[in-house]
Amino acid sequence: MSNPYWSDIVRELDPYVPGEQPKLPNLVKLNTNENPYGPSPRVLEAIAAESGDSLRLYPDPNGTALKAAIAAYYRVDSEQVFLGNGSDEVLAHIFQGLLKHQHPILFPDITYSFYPVYCGLYRVAFERVPLAEDFSLRVADYCADGRDNGGIIFPNPNAPTGMLLPLADIEWLLQQNRQSVVVVDEAYVDFGGETAISLVNRYPNLLVTQTLSKSRSLAGLRIGFAVGDAGLIEALERVKNSFNSYPLSRLAIVGGVAAFGDEAYFRDVCGRVVEGREQLVSELAGLGFEVLPSAANFVMTRHPQREAADLMQALRQRGIIVRHFSQTRIAQYLRITVGTAEQNVQLLNALRAILLA
Amino acid sequence: MSNPYWSDIVRELDPYVPGEQPKLPNLVKLNTNENPYGPSPRVLEAIAAESGDSLRLYPDPNGTALKAAIAAYYRVDSEQVFLGNGSDEVLAHIFQGLLKHQHPILFPDITYSFYPVYCGLYRVAFERVPLAEDFSLRVADYCADGRDNGGIIFPNPNAPTGMLLPLADIEWLLQQNRQSVVVVDEAYVDFGGETAISLVNRYPNLLVTQTLSKSRSLAGLRIGFAVGDAGLIEALERVKNSFNSYPLSRLAIVGGVAAFGDEAYFRDVCGRVVEGREQLVSELAGLGFEVLPSAANFVMTRHPQREAADLMQALRQRGIIVRHFSQTRIAQYLRITVGTAEQNVQLLNALRAILLA
Repeated sequence: MSNPYWSDIVRELDPYVPGEQPKLPNLVKLNTNENPYGPSPRVLEAIAAESGDSLRLYPDPNGTALKAAIAAYYRVDSEQVFLGNGSDEVLAHIFQGLLKHQHPILFPDITYSFYPVYCGLYRVAFERVPLAEDFSLRVADYCADGRDNGGIIFPNPNAPTGMLLPLADIEWLLQQNRQSVVVVDEAYVDFGGETAISLVNRYPNLLVTQTLSKSRSLAGLRIGFAVGDAGLIEALERVKNSFNSYPLSRLAIVGGVAAFGDEAYFRDVCGRVVEGREQLVSELAGLGFEVLPSAANFVMTRHPQREAADLMQALRQRGIIVRHFSQTRIAQYLRITVGTAEQNVQLLNALRAILLA
Repeated sequence: MSNPYWSDIVRELDPYVPGEQPKLPNLVKLNTNENPYGPSPRVLEAIAAESGDSLRLYPDPNGTALKAAIAAYYRVDSEQVFLGNGSDEVLAHIFQGLLKHQHPILFPDITYSFYPVYCGLYRVAFERVPLAEDFSLRVADYCADGRDNGGIIFPNPNAPTGMLLPLADIEWLLQQNRQSVVVVDEAYVDFGGETAISLVNRYPNLLVTQTLSKSRSLAGLRIGFAVGDAGLIEALERVKNSFNSYPLSRLAIVGGVAAFGDEAYFRDVCGRVVEGREQLVSELAGLGFEVLPSAANFVMTRHPQREAADLMQALRQRGIIVRHFSQTRIAQYLRITVGTAEQNVQLLNALRAILLA
């Protein structure tokens, strides 16, 4: 499909395809890494309190209250915090405002598949750097002699592998690579990683992105943010204010503030997800699955004797949805979100039945 | 302020400056064209019903339910509806996806000041077409012999003049200009205009944008949309899906559906705003103000003997905020949002006192 009225760029785009959001009620939905537990009651109270006449008014375009809450939480200044309508929007502005340079940006060959899509949208040149055989990320590969780059971006833990890069490796990379921005996409960091935000005051080219969609159970509310040097944040503010003055609704702003105000709930939920993951990993291994070491709220797993695509279909027939990627290196893997204890048991029972069939 | 890590484009940007959102409680806020009346109770009920455990789940990336509600309301197909996080985001995608061509796009010299900002963000060439002396838009000026354009965009009613272009003029323009997209930005159309959506099935290059921020009292929730030929919408979907899979939160989707489901409330609110405007216009005239003919929820007005900037300051000292633009042709005008009956009286009393002082 094309059309004479389209801008040239539209024809070149290869849009991202999100995991499906099926409407069937009794599905066990383990395909988009949502939190199996709902948001903090305080978030719901804050939304209820804001849901009234004031919705007729525009939100604070700067999201000042939420920036302040995040800044206090991470002990940075508000000027070091950028807010967006989910971390996908934050990432989009980063690609446009900080990663478009003469040299190609670098990211892993196996990673969040939205990165090359953004490159298409903003015509950012890129090169994929292969992960090691065991899917670990070797930071030295990003600093090869004479290799200039326009920026470096990777998720930590990586997606869809779930594998964690130690903070020391990130700091080594920052020491070697001072000429371009290094973006650490920490969508899943709360499930077992250590945030690189502690490094932003020492490295003016470090930008860390996070989201409230995973560990804070708010995928439906759409809040993401970035933390870094105020100079980097200023670039993002300039792009944002040339795109949409009010990316966060009034409900998102108050909900986000409340989420950062309920540390006990947050820790409890993350703890339960991590516990569920460890149990799931152990049970999958018992069924003969190989599981990559995960620090996220999902596991990447394969069965040596079964086609991943067949397993996915068989699970689907049993009302369980997981994600499969057709990319060569991971085509034999399934990415499975950690569910509630009950959902994990349903998944394991289904897999057991499929393997026996 | 600049920074070696910025993409080139960031240095060139001249970001939009929204009307301020002051936090003082007793302010009469007539500066950002919000609706003085709150949203429909049904919207609040829908938000309350959706505010629970399901916020942990991503929204429907396609916003299918809201597209269907808008399509039904305007008797078009769902494939003719595009949704965005406020109409500013919709417009941004339009500039990138449909207005970037070899020839410059055209828009009025006095118009929504975000248009040239989008042009900066996406490097879209543009030319400003002067409004007539009386601030009316002459469609013939957009079709001068041998003048090729990459697209045409204007608000109807125009902002910040509030003046309406008859639908017949829009159709004449569409007949003359078939080689590029014509965008009619109907943010304010519900307060006295006639939507051009009735023309979209006959003109494959017509795109109409609207927002729920004004007539539906939902500026705080962030919902905008575009209606046009499915071929135009497809371009916007491709851009959106390369930018952010989930621009509308779960609360925005259900709130938007509920807003379109409460026609009686909508008509009542619009009627009250229009009534307030007519009364305000008449009273302003009585104080010696000249008022441009408005079909919007604001009036553009000047006093022959008073500097607009001084009037704005004097109103501010009395706790009333209106908007002033420094652009030459309108530097002597104030743009005043129509408030509640009570707010309008407060405004008029303050103006009376200022004029007598």
